[in-house]
Amino acid sequence: MRLRNVKNKDEILNSSTYLVSNPKDYLGKWSKLFGNNHKIYIEIGMGKGTFLIENAKTYPDINFIGIEKYSSVLARAAQKLEVEELPNIKLIRMDAKDIEEVFSKEVSRIYLNFSDPWPKKRQYKRRLTSETFLNRYDNIFKKEKEIIMKTDNMNLFEFSLEELSKHEYKFEKVYLDLHNSDIEHNIETEYEKKFSENGNKIYYLYAKKDV
Amino acid sequence: MRLRNVKNKDEILNSSTYLVSNPKDYLGKWSKLFGNNHKIYIEIGMGKGTFLIENAKTYPDINFIGIEKYSSVLARAAQKLEVEELPNIKLIRMDAKDIEEVFSKEVSRIYLNFSDPWPKKRQYKRRLTSETFLNRYDNIFKKEKEIIMKTDNMNLFEFSLEELSKHEYKFEKVYLDLHNSDIEHNIETEYEKKFSENGNKIYYLYAKKDV
Repeated sequence: MRLRNVKNKDEILNSSTYLVSNPKDYLGKWSKLFGNNHKIYIEIGMGKGTFLIENAKTYPDINFIGIEKYSSVLARAAQKLEVEELPNIKLIRMDAKDIEEVFSKEVSRIYLNFSDPWPKKRQYKRRLTSETFLNRYDNIFKKEKEIIMKTDNMNLFEFSLEELSKHEYKFEKVYLDLHNSDIEHNIETEYEKKFSENGNKIYYLYAKKDV
Repeated sequence: MRLRNVKNKDEILNSSTYLVSNPKDYLGKWSKLFGNNHKIYIEIGMGKGTFLIENAKTYPDINFIGIEKYSSVLARAAQKLEVEELPNIKLIRMDAKDIEEVFSKEVSRIYLNFSDPWPKKRQYKRRLTSETFLNRYDNIFKKEKEIIMKTDNMNLFEFSLEELSKHEYKFEKVYLDLHNSDIEHNIETEYEKKFSENGNKIYYLYAKKDV
């Protein structure tokens, strides 16, 4: 997600107690940083953080880490968090391609919300559900391996069903119209709210991989 | 698929050289009946046979067997075949639940086109992609295991993605809008033609299972 430039974004981020500025130092040690052994769920491409923050409030016994490449949107999330006291949330500014340098066998679930569809064939390997990325996730996942994805992009969703199944994932749940489904407790992203108000369909999958 | 009653349907069927009236006699021996070792593809719920007949013409080196429960629609298929000479097609009137009594380790591909969605939860086990049926297919498949499915029913399609992935199938291809996809050589069913003309989406999957 891109956003117009936020003034003082570096200042906001540097003063945020939620931002982990040296994430590689915690490789394999994130539980120590949180001070407990709760499960760690990450969101890659967290944008302005609505989804992540709402989850952290709803599930205090899960540790949530949000990853975002763009400092402008990350600064918005940091601003929102200034008025919160949530011990179970951390933010990282990084490119997801380096994820193995930051996590090692310690993540239980990955959320992918409205990820960049990279529509051209030569860009497919940049998609967050490409084989390249699924191989990376294999190294950051603990015993539990779960990916939950939402998107409005049909081609990205088709691609993800194919790639995940080829990578031994099984689908616990697939919804081709999430907002007219029987799902319970759907926490919406900002983009999702806006998008579905226009009557567009949201695709959803919950995939698990056996050990 | 149901159809208004066809007069003389039994007569039509009994006189058809394409109908195999004693299919259980060929358990494990279908290649002998065809007189060659070509791959065997079956369509469960073949209806009036448009799809099957078109396939048999297009792919003469594949043996096609159509299965249908209702004699009225099957009689229509038999009528169409009267004017054809297709050595690579056979018809069976049977309930798919008995499929293991008719085939044993000899089928390479199953087509499921616009199958009954059985919408109520207690009926799910009757769906042709339920665990019950996938277990049956395991016994009729040869080394190659392929299922190709088309449907206009969203809930049946979601269910099928879940069930097939849990049963170790991998998706070679998924289309959520077949008629606006890059698929090549899509052979349409009668229902599909009518349905898509109304602008409705057709879901498609091509699943493979490793040995």
